[in-house]
Amino acid sequence: MIKPSKIQFYPEGFLSYHTSCGIKDNTLDLGVVFSETPANSAAVFTRNAFPGEPVKIGRKIIQNGLLQAIVVNSKNANVATGSDGYENSLKICRKTAQELNIPVDSVLPSSTGVIGRPLPFEKVLAGLDSLKDQLVNPADFPGFAAAIMTTDTFPKFVSAQTGNASIVGVAKGSGMIEPNMATMLSYFFTDAEISSNDLDRILRSCADKTFNCLSVDSDTSTSDTLVIMANGKAGKVDLVEFENTLLSLCTDLTKMLARDGEGATKLFIVDVINADSADAAKKIAKSIINSPLVKTMIYQGDPNWGRIYMAVGKTSGVHLREPQIQIFWGKNREIDSSSTTALSKYLRENEELFLTVDMCSGKSSCRVYGCDLTEEYVRINAFYTT
Amino acid sequence: MIKPSKIQFYPEGFLSYHTSCGIKDNTLDLGVVFSETPANSAAVFTRNAFPGEPVKIGRKIIQNGLLQAIVVNSKNANVATGSDGYENSLKICRKTAQELNIPVDSVLPSSTGVIGRPLPFEKVLAGLDSLKDQLVNPADFPGFAAAIMTTDTFPKFVSAQTGNASIVGVAKGSGMIEPNMATMLSYFFTDAEISSNDLDRILRSCADKTFNCLSVDSDTSTSDTLVIMANGKAGKVDLVEFENTLLSLCTDLTKMLARDGEGATKLFIVDVINADSADAAKKIAKSIINSPLVKTMIYQGDPNWGRIYMAVGKTSGVHLREPQIQIFWGKNREIDSSSTTALSKYLRENEELFLTVDMCSGKSSCRVYGCDLTEEYVRINAFYTT
Repeated sequence: MIKPSKIQFYPEGFLSYHTSCGIKDNTLDLGVVFSETPANSAAVFTRNAFPGEPVKIGRKIIQNGLLQAIVVNSKNANVATGSDGYENSLKICRKTAQELNIPVDSVLPSSTGVIGRPLPFEKVLAGLDSLKDQLVNPADFPGFAAAIMTTDTFPKFVSAQTGNASIVGVAKGSGMIEPNMATMLSYFFTDAEISSNDLDRILRSCADKTFNCLSVDSDTSTSDTLVIMANGKAGKVDLVEFENTLLSLCTDLTKMLARDGEGATKLFIVDVINADSADAAKKIAKSIINSPLVKTMIYQGDPNWGRIYMAVGKTSGVHLREPQIQIFWGKNREIDSSSTTALSKYLRENEELFLTVDMCSGKSSCRVYGCDLTEEYVRINAFYTT
Repeated sequence: MIKPSKIQFYPEGFLSYHTSCGIKDNTLDLGVVFSETPANSAAVFTRNAFPGEPVKIGRKIIQNGLLQAIVVNSKNANVATGSDGYENSLKICRKTAQELNIPVDSVLPSSTGVIGRPLPFEKVLAGLDSLKDQLVNPADFPGFAAAIMTTDTFPKFVSAQTGNASIVGVAKGSGMIEPNMATMLSYFFTDAEISSNDLDRILRSCADKTFNCLSVDSDTSTSDTLVIMANGKAGKVDLVEFENTLLSLCTDLTKMLARDGEGATKLFIVDVINADSADAAKKIAKSIINSPLVKTMIYQGDPNWGRIYMAVGKTSGVHLREPQIQIFWGKNREIDSSSTTALSKYLRENEELFLTVDMCSGKSSCRVYGCDLTEEYVRINAFYTT
């Protein structure tokens, strides 16, 4: 079961708050996570050339390597809103800082939702009134995860222990997802003591293997933001073990995001192996996982494997020799293309599908995460603002 | 009305034949066009690295610059079928040549349909028995166009006069369409007298502005083939006029292909203007026309214009400055983004939608052709082989 039930491990010193401030309706739309002490932090952001206003602020603030709070609203992305939009995000940061009595440059803002509409920042400011008194301790991470959802069908959170420290991760999806450097919105909180330089290196490495290998619909959000805050309360940890634990949590969140892609009914995991280079492996894997014809094929379990072949062949920027490729399905590569009956059965009876494409030409591999394409994706997105 | 009704101009000296040879069922699946005399010819083919076996043969044969017949089957693409597949296509060429008493290297084969299944070539060979006696004169181009359809909902053909000569064009779509060098299957027949070198230059130029600017679903077919045959019976023509006429016919077929994209309900024409380079303009336009979120938005007429902004911003391989872009809708750019009501009305009430994105930064422009993304696209492709 991919849907999370509860937080098992709590990092010390994090408090939270979430509410509905009425941006669109009376559903949850505002969340804050606060660290009692300044936390070493790192972040990566979208590579969309037109980032949201909060992303522009976040990029500046993270250069200090220190954060004490994040403030996130859903229902409005504050993108393509110009200098007014930038100023509105700053006002939200100032209000948060003032309420919490912390420096304004220790508050990182995020917004997610519809693009190109002015953010009703007064509602957000009103929602932050008396923030300090309303914080809960320890933080209610599932509640925060729920507050930042857009078309997600369930809140996404994970937790783990590493040495004496704990890590919690929270994320939201679920359309406009082909992260390019970071991902939609995802935040990690830990009480481990780690320098911001180490956090930055570890976060980028983990993101490259997980969030950056995820695609729901090949559309890159303008708001992608991935942040980690480490307040040090639990003391030092083994960095290798910490990175492995974080990687595992990132992988779990990535799978949740793929499985909860808009309209999705299947999680689709594609391994490209024995490719000429890591870059080639990733490009080929992305070409497969983004192909509408492959995505519709796995939706109804149609054993039309020639589409995999087509998707490999159309990969641009990769040199492909006359095909010697081998295609396998199943976690243990137990189904080859010779049996369409077995493949059809496998595709229809599993919610988690594994495809392996052996390029038979080199030594590099890549794993990517995606989902099927359904009528429901079309419906959700044909009516999103109305 | 985009659906063609009849051929108005007939080039001299072309005969045709079409039938059902029973590849999948008893619908039309085989067509031949024959020129009484050898015709100067040119062709461009898919850039998918794993082309179909007929494409491999076509690439060799077209080097002579002379063709006398094309033989096309639908329902099976003869792709990913290995050396047997290659040999089977050759057998079809040999049979065609023998029946028509012409050299085997003047017969260009094409196949379209499902990938990865052996082509039942015996059925095709039987379908070609007594071919010469069954040819109709003049060629029945609409019948030939119907025989090469897969999921197309109507046969696609065009005709025009240039000087004393006529040109007829025929094409089929309608999924797995983002041509990269050529397009799905499209054939032009003319009685103009033009050298194969001139044909090649003119055909490539026209394809670049039309078929190569078309995308239904970003998936590049393994079978894309575009051929022109000019048998010279009508004598010399003005080359500039000929090129303009051919360009116009290619544009018409491209629009038909986009409008008849799988599941499509709208033709979507995107102009990117005032970009830094022609390459940038094309990449940005393709990014917009391939975006699932843009394609679903126009389907139901949702005025969610921020998605255009996102799609421009995510264009890879293009340097984009802080956005000064302007977005207009309508053939005469009469609707700007200030009125979501007017935009919603425009999107809902028109089957042919025009979007213009002014990059405000250079002098290059590009027009591309696409369609909306609907539940029907998903349905068609989730059940294609079953």
